[in-house]
Amino acid sequence: MSARLNLLLLTARPFSRLGEWDPVKIEGVIDQISGFMFHNNCENDDFNRFDEMLTQIETTFGHLLHQVEWVSLGGGIHFTGEGYPVDAFCARLKQFAQTFGVQVYLEPGEAAITLSTTLEVTVLDTLFNGKNLAVVDSSIEAHMLDLLIYQQSAKMAPCEGEHEYMVCGKSCLAGDIFGTFRFDAPLKAGDRLSFIDAAGYTMVKKNWFNGVQMPSIAVRQLDGRVELIREFTFDDFVQNLS
Amino acid sequence: MSARLNLLLLTARPFSRLGEWDPVKIEGVIDQISGFMFHNNCENDDFNRFDEMLTQIETTFGHLLHQVEWVSLGGGIHFTGEGYPVDAFCARLKQFAQTFGVQVYLEPGEAAITLSTTLEVTVLDTLFNGKNLAVVDSSIEAHMLDLLIYQQSAKMAPCEGEHEYMVCGKSCLAGDIFGTFRFDAPLKAGDRLSFIDAAGYTMVKKNWFNGVQMPSIAVRQLDGRVELIREFTFDDFVQNLS
Repeated sequence: MSARLNLLLLTARPFSRLGEWDPVKIEGVIDQISGFMFHNNCENDDFNRFDEMLTQIETTFGHLLHQVEWVSLGGGIHFTGEGYPVDAFCARLKQFAQTFGVQVYLEPGEAAITLSTTLEVTVLDTLFNGKNLAVVDSSIEAHMLDLLIYQQSAKMAPCEGEHEYMVCGKSCLAGDIFGTFRFDAPLKAGDRLSFIDAAGYTMVKKNWFNGVQMPSIAVRQLDGRVELIREFTFDDFVQNLS
Repeated sequence: MSARLNLLLLTARPFSRLGEWDPVKIEGVIDQISGFMFHNNCENDDFNRFDEMLTQIETTFGHLLHQVEWVSLGGGIHFTGEGYPVDAFCARLKQFAQTFGVQVYLEPGEAAITLSTTLEVTVLDTLFNGKNLAVVDSSIEAHMLDLLIYQQSAKMAPCEGEHEYMVCGKSCLAGDIFGTFRFDAPLKAGDRLSFIDAAGYTMVKKNWFNGVQMPSIAVRQLDGRVELIREFTFDDFVQNLS
């Protein structure tokens, strides 16, 4: 059995249901607990801040940490970001693991996909409606839901050309827009576009809204070969509905 | 082949990619088009406004309407709402169909689910964290995505008791909250809650975020029997990922 813990003093959101924050309550059931999950990082790219939070965890829950086998520090630590002090980060984690005799786990979703994964789309059509628009064979609601939920734009690089386009999904949703990007040449049907850092929650949040075809999953090996891992079919669509 | 049309004068969103608005451009390809889809209703519960919009469609596209076999007027017309003048609505549609010799289609997603579908959930745990919270065996991100995207609350009726609870999903998402509701008695683990009007986009937008189990789909027949239509399993979860 594991327990999810919450540092109340660090919690920005009032009335959170996510985890227990009272060491006294945990002490009463510690014999049933093999490990703790702390998830109080969210888009944290500052090692000093991470260090402070870990110190606060040690201060508040240290006597309990000695009694479990493992600790997950969750995700949200941008240790693959440019200039992140990875050596200091590793040393801090090692010190934490040794002090409390625990196996430390991280859940590096965003760190793992940064600069390693793309969503490949193809331009279906272009039009001018006060702005240059390009419609592609994908949809943010079906494939990159976080863009819709958090009102973010997809990422593309380089993106400094003269020709600006609003790149739109093909679903019926008015807000199905990947973002506005700059290209070296005018876009035309058939052009391939590549959104970077695109796989954060893509696979677990993808859904069949509007019946838009799911992108296949492929891996480019170090020698350049592209291996197809998974394709989705109309049968998958039917199977998902009922 | 069908064409999606857009009444530019009625379009609130600038730079829309959704449909053609210029009758002249359509005239050039009308021999390839069997029907038109107009989707300019969005949560329209006012028959007079609907009537005005249909008149504008007739004025702008009337000569083209005579040349196609069918017209879809899309969704968003709340003709199942309390007090909606259904007879006048039907007469107006009939007049439209006869004038232009077209089969009229509606796409009544929301109208079809109103007061007919529920999401049934069970309370897993309760806690007090400045407010009374109840965690249920479901998740808005996985099952009722529109609550998250549009920052709405789920619906429950009646909802006038003395005991107020924030009803929360079980996923790791901080904002996984169905809403705040009032009950006649304190909630406890095992209690069944029923969200009404819950099926709008539930089946096509459901996804496996956090691996939360999908709700089964069941139909209550008029004689009271409940027939299970579909259950989802761990294999479905695995199959959806890769």
